[in-house]
Amino acid sequence: MLSKQQIKIIRSLHLKKNRKQSGLFVCEGAKILHELLHSSLQINKIYALNSWITENRQFLSDENIFQQVTEKELEQISELSTPNEVLAIAVIPENKIPEIKGLSIGLESIRDPGNLGTIIRIADWYGLTDIFCTEDCADAYNSKVVQASMGSLFRVRVHYADLKEFLSNCTVPKYAAALEGSLNLHEYKDFKGRGVLVIGNESNGLSTEILDICDVKLHIPRFGQAESLNAAVATGIFLDAMRR
Amino acid sequence: MLSKQQIKIIRSLHLKKNRKQSGLFVCEGAKILHELLHSSLQINKIYALNSWITENRQFLSDENIFQQVTEKELEQISELSTPNEVLAIAVIPENKIPEIKGLSIGLESIRDPGNLGTIIRIADWYGLTDIFCTEDCADAYNSKVVQASMGSLFRVRVHYADLKEFLSNCTVPKYAAALEGSLNLHEYKDFKGRGVLVIGNESNGLSTEILDICDVKLHIPRFGQAESLNAAVATGIFLDAMRR
Repeated sequence: MLSKQQIKIIRSLHLKKNRKQSGLFVCEGAKILHELLHSSLQINKIYALNSWITENRQFLSDENIFQQVTEKELEQISELSTPNEVLAIAVIPENKIPEIKGLSIGLESIRDPGNLGTIIRIADWYGLTDIFCTEDCADAYNSKVVQASMGSLFRVRVHYADLKEFLSNCTVPKYAAALEGSLNLHEYKDFKGRGVLVIGNESNGLSTEILDICDVKLHIPRFGQAESLNAAVATGIFLDAMRR
Repeated sequence: MLSKQQIKIIRSLHLKKNRKQSGLFVCEGAKILHELLHSSLQINKIYALNSWITENRQFLSDENIFQQVTEKELEQISELSTPNEVLAIAVIPENKIPEIKGLSIGLESIRDPGNLGTIIRIADWYGLTDIFCTEDCADAYNSKVVQASMGSLFRVRVHYADLKEFLSNCTVPKYAAALEGSLNLHEYKDFKGRGVLVIGNESNGLSTEILDICDVKLHIPRFGQAESLNAAVATGIFLDAMRR
């Protein structure tokens, strides 16, 4: 049975400040747990229905790591509208900012958790291992980001840094997703499989400060009337072009 | 002042069956209203704060079309967590299924309203005017779709049809977004600016039934480990390739 204190601690992790303080985050659902169990991340505790434990006991080396809960208890600790079998508490990895040699992404002020999660998943699809975010981007360990990333968060490192400083020190080319008037992505053929793709907030685009540091400014040509593309969709189109 | 009956009618439109019956839908927020006012859609009524009316009176030909409401009343009829100045009731256009000559999209079982809205916006960006959906796709006039489409819904026609029958009768090439093992999108150079891009549900992909009708099966090459791409992101990457 879950104690009131346990419930309180788990629920507190739905807030960023408590995740920062404890270094822990919440991860929910059978599908994402499967990815978590096969990742290098350290799991602190797993709260699961009996059905999940029976099916997954073979993957759990340490019997003390899981605790059986009832559906009602799962509801009490879950942030999902329909809790799904299992919830885990895992340790937020401490990532050192690496030297970038291949492809990576820089994000400025991407505040929507769904967008950030989708971008992490796209990065994983295209084989990127690092994303650099300004501090005002959504928190990668927010439960909505964890869900939207579909497990890719356990393979892609998300760094929060002074993006301007990071880009200034970067030795690979920096490609800005910019507005019309810049180079046409369809005509640019000079990607060499390395560099940082820099994506801005979809309402405001990239700040002049960040744009100025970028070596190449490119835009996705528009054939119709929509004012803009969703930031995650734009990231997908750019990375696909860069991997061609 | 809004009557109880008015509030009841407006709120009823948050359900698909009531939208179907009345032929009306709800549209919220200053930004989307701006697009609605500049579209060909027929507006039935606008409920707005005084601030919005003062600013937009010049665009409203008919004084009877709007009604001033208080912030509290707007909260009562809004589906947004933070209601934004104005809410309109507009008429769902009746679109005849056109003959496809250029580029269009076919969607099978895209149930997530956010994904459908984002796909409508991408279609608008790439200059498409028609999307064909199976009946089990999200309803295009669901408020979440309306919000996510950012006004593109007023320029792109969304048809609900028997997709299999529609594709069978189509004279343009049909391109399926398929799995690895099909042709590589990066190597395919034979798009001729016309055809139907057919996208499936992201958990299950396209059904064999639909895949069998398609002329060309293509996949987005994967360089990393993510299991799949979000359906809207895949649509963006495909359309960008088809417009190259």
